[in-house]
Amino acid sequence: MRELLYEGKAKRIFKTDDEQTVLIEYKDSATAFNGQKKADITGKGRLNNEITSLLFLKLKEQGIESHFIKQLSETEQLVKKVNIIPLEVVIRNVAAGSFSKRLGIEEGKELTKPMVEFYLKNDDLEDPLLTTDHIYEMNVATAEEVAILIEKALQINTVLTGFFNELGINLIDFKLEFGKDTDGEILLADEISPDTCRLWDKKTNEKLDKDVFRRDLGSLTEAYETVFNRLGGKQNV
Amino acid sequence: MRELLYEGKAKRIFKTDDEQTVLIEYKDSATAFNGQKKADITGKGRLNNEITSLLFLKLKEQGIESHFIKQLSETEQLVKKVNIIPLEVVIRNVAAGSFSKRLGIEEGKELTKPMVEFYLKNDDLEDPLLTTDHIYEMNVATAEEVAILIEKALQINTVLTGFFNELGINLIDFKLEFGKDTDGEILLADEISPDTCRLWDKKTNEKLDKDVFRRDLGSLTEAYETVFNRLGGKQNV
Repeated sequence: MRELLYEGKAKRIFKTDDEQTVLIEYKDSATAFNGQKKADITGKGRLNNEITSLLFLKLKEQGIESHFIKQLSETEQLVKKVNIIPLEVVIRNVAAGSFSKRLGIEEGKELTKPMVEFYLKNDDLEDPLLTTDHIYEMNVATAEEVAILIEKALQINTVLTGFFNELGINLIDFKLEFGKDTDGEILLADEISPDTCRLWDKKTNEKLDKDVFRRDLGSLTEAYETVFNRLGGKQNV
Repeated sequence: MRELLYEGKAKRIFKTDDEQTVLIEYKDSATAFNGQKKADITGKGRLNNEITSLLFLKLKEQGIESHFIKQLSETEQLVKKVNIIPLEVVIRNVAAGSFSKRLGIEEGKELTKPMVEFYLKNDDLEDPLLTTDHIYEMNVATAEEVAILIEKALQINTVLTGFFNELGINLIDFKLEFGKDTDGEILLADEISPDTCRLWDKKTNEKLDKDVFRRDLGSLTEAYETVFNRLGGKQNV
């Protein structure tokens, strides 16, 4: 019997025999609007695990380390244990979603340059936007750590934007989480999947991400499968 | 007949014979929660005009210029005409109000140092919080201008905090607006009053500001009158 360490909205984290690693199981549940909209979608866990595994490998090839060690099964991966910094680091290339709504910037408008935003990971507070002063005041991260997060986020954006571009996909925006390993090193963690990215087909602007679920635009698994297939599909298990 | 240039929630702006100046009339209307709560409170316009006039003079004595030229009557003042930068510049010394609620920081907690926040002046969008990247992306102000705003805001905070402290009042937080004059110089503008400041009695923590209206804590004019009297009261007309 595996020992469950933590259960989130989309993943379960299990203990392993090694103190330094944990096992992540991707669930089939979809949630949106801070958990107000929910559904169980068969295949979603598999697709997000496959896509995240592929993208973490891709980033590693480009010199960007993450917590990812290896994929274990269709829905499981082994990762380095880290202490998650409670920030959602959002990188935006094109205005969309809540950003467009909050600031009155038309969805689809390309930003003059990629923008990094920080949101507090706190469901009760509905993940409020933070300024860097808020981050320091609340001791969420130091100025030095924030600088590292911004630098890494922009690096990852450059790699992923180029990569998706080759696949005919526009990377509109995405959310990253980072953690600290036992040496205090800041490592990319969590997942990178159509759950955490906005991905629009370059030709048709068709949405290939969780907005399909948020906005009832059709089959989520078909959209995620499209992303997975363009990434090269099932070949790395 | 005076020509009305603009009518806001709490003030009317009139043309004068001089192109370089405008006349501000303070109204008796009180609004809160982006205009959802409204009332007409006799005496409020007079008190805010008197208090603002006193505070702008006080700041001038300390070398901080504003648009203020002189008080004309109980409810009117003459000011330099400026183009308002559409930002609410909020300075916080102690957590309170929406800040406490959004970030889960207890009301009354002193901040480790004064914090400057920017909100977009836009009623339709309900004045959203902006990061500096938002400000640049939306061309609301340049990085150089933002640096000037922060510097001025903190200077003004130092003067006002000291001044209110002598009067037995804690300056919890306050909102400033700035404008550009015809030379492009950034000047403090708008008002500084119990409408735009949180002021707590140092001994009793009694609220002497618009929260009296927002939270139905008693007589707004009594609270504002207390502030006006401690400031030295009616002597500068």
